[in-house]
Amino acid sequence: MNRIVTAAAHPNLAVVKYWGKADPRLNIPTNSSLSVNLGSARTTTTVSFSPDLEQDVVRLNGAAADDRTAERVARHLDRVRRLAGRTERALVDSTNDFPAAAGIASSASAFAALSLAASRALGLRLSERELSILARQGSGSACRSIPDGFVRWEAGQDDASSYAYQVAPPEHWDLRITTVIFSDQPKEVSSSDGHALAQTSPFFGARLAGLPRTLETVQAALLARDFPRFGLALEREAVNMHAIAMTADVGAAASGLYYWQATTMQLIQQVQAWRRAGLPVYFTIDAGPNVHLFCEAAQQAALEAELARLLPDMRARAIVSAPARGAWVMSEA
Amino acid sequence: MNRIVTAAAHPNLAVVKYWGKADPRLNIPTNSSLSVNLGSARTTTTVSFSPDLEQDVVRLNGAAADDRTAERVARHLDRVRRLAGRTERALVDSTNDFPAAAGIASSASAFAALSLAASRALGLRLSERELSILARQGSGSACRSIPDGFVRWEAGQDDASSYAYQVAPPEHWDLRITTVIFSDQPKEVSSSDGHALAQTSPFFGARLAGLPRTLETVQAALLARDFPRFGLALEREAVNMHAIAMTADVGAAASGLYYWQATTMQLIQQVQAWRRAGLPVYFTIDAGPNVHLFCEAAQQAALEAELARLLPDMRARAIVSAPARGAWVMSEA
Repeated sequence: MNRIVTAAAHPNLAVVKYWGKADPRLNIPTNSSLSVNLGSARTTTTVSFSPDLEQDVVRLNGAAADDRTAERVARHLDRVRRLAGRTERALVDSTNDFPAAAGIASSASAFAALSLAASRALGLRLSERELSILARQGSGSACRSIPDGFVRWEAGQDDASSYAYQVAPPEHWDLRITTVIFSDQPKEVSSSDGHALAQTSPFFGARLAGLPRTLETVQAALLARDFPRFGLALEREAVNMHAIAMTADVGAAASGLYYWQATTMQLIQQVQAWRRAGLPVYFTIDAGPNVHLFCEAAQQAALEAELARLLPDMRARAIVSAPARGAWVMSEA
Repeated sequence: MNRIVTAAAHPNLAVVKYWGKADPRLNIPTNSSLSVNLGSARTTTTVSFSPDLEQDVVRLNGAAADDRTAERVARHLDRVRRLAGRTERALVDSTNDFPAAAGIASSASAFAALSLAASRALGLRLSERELSILARQGSGSACRSIPDGFVRWEAGQDDASSYAYQVAPPEHWDLRITTVIFSDQPKEVSSSDGHALAQTSPFFGARLAGLPRTLETVQAALLARDFPRFGLALEREAVNMHAIAMTADVGAAASGLYYWQATTMQLIQQVQAWRRAGLPVYFTIDAGPNVHLFCEAAQQAALEAELARLLPDMRARAIVSAPARGAWVMSEA
């Protein structure tokens, strides 16, 4: 009955951001969000439960996980055990094939893969919606790495109504997302702290009020494959989210929450210049300095040539993704 | 009766920004603002009226002014002529001792000096308030370069109620303001366009709602010489204003109004780091990329040493000001 299950999931990149929690315990967000799974980054997680284990054992990228991570994983395994009515402890072995501080949220792919592997290892057959809810409980945006392709996370009001679902399959639109990694410094303020501080911005209420329209614009442009409309809207949305961060009240330690660095700003300006010069590329930025560039597949070569000119040492440090599937089982034994 | 008058004025730097016009024709702002005159930058303007002139002649920094500038000056001279009931045309010769694109608004010192010189040349003896109103009609923030020291521009409701007055004399507080000039590119979007776009930001209403409290905080900290409180508030205010710019709707040309460049962001981060390391310095940024650093006089040497380390080629390109007087007459003949 106890199986060894290996599951994988891609991280996802939000084009309409999750920023602020209505319920921090359940990771219920203050707004719905929209994302795409990033095909060139992946977490692979193997889970096996055993009555012989005294406690959960968590390995991350080939080494013992730090206490905080191990504790967070154990709490998530508790959720799965409760669902299955089981008590055995587990061995969890998880690896990411992308750098920790790439500006790609590894907690999303990690908790998506963990939710799928652990639930299957205990014999559960959760629906996509149930898996999405479970993943969300572990790390909010992980719920978006469960469905395939372009995904909407409906904020909902409670545990049962806050989950993600597919808006369009990965093959709907042949986009390319270039994650430009120029900083691998761990960020000074985590996304969790950013969520907690969001509501201290004087602009947070106005952001929330505008989000339904932003979501509809981005989703409609996505479904219509209207790239300029999609790109401009997602770019404005990213800046809107960072304006909330920058105007947050972080006390006397700093005047705001600044995720951007010099190269972030350079790329923000450069993207505007590329478009003026006829190269249709748009950016988004998550809770960190690195920049993600969107273009249609036909423009990817031109964009990479531009990037190589602009940041010669960056060439090897860009991850180019296409829209990708959601979490999947790689093996069961 | 026709005199040759030379007047001078310092530019001023806002610690609570003017961003958005309630009446674009009269330059009545949507909010009150607070500034300090910058002692190490100056516009000097000589005006002489003559019945022999067919039209106004405007020289700027030793050369004929471009048509747009000349026209703007002529319209301002029309205001002075109306006040004096006179019709003679004038010769205007104006020079700035600071670079055009330093991130210091030369239109403020220019229209303050012009208002004083032209009114005196026609024999008018305007009060400080009248001069401030006249200067505002030429260029909004010019009204703040009329009074001495630390100055508040009361937004008012109409032409008569929108003027600037002294909050504290220059000697009230021995601050140093270091204008770090790393870009002398003319900005792509003028302040005037920025003002016009301000109200397209989804956050503009929230900014306006918060400004009375910001003004009281900054003014109270100024009067109490509470530097950490003053600094943090002015820094947050600058970022608030730039968040409005960045989230403005500029159409399809760009996703927002980005005045910042890579070095701007580097300095924003560096200022936070300096404070963490015990150097009390705060920034503000106007409608351009360059950064103005505030510290108390005792810290100026330490700040300059840090700047020299950080930006070795910048040393000669920083302007260090103390709070200064308002517009004054240099000579009358």
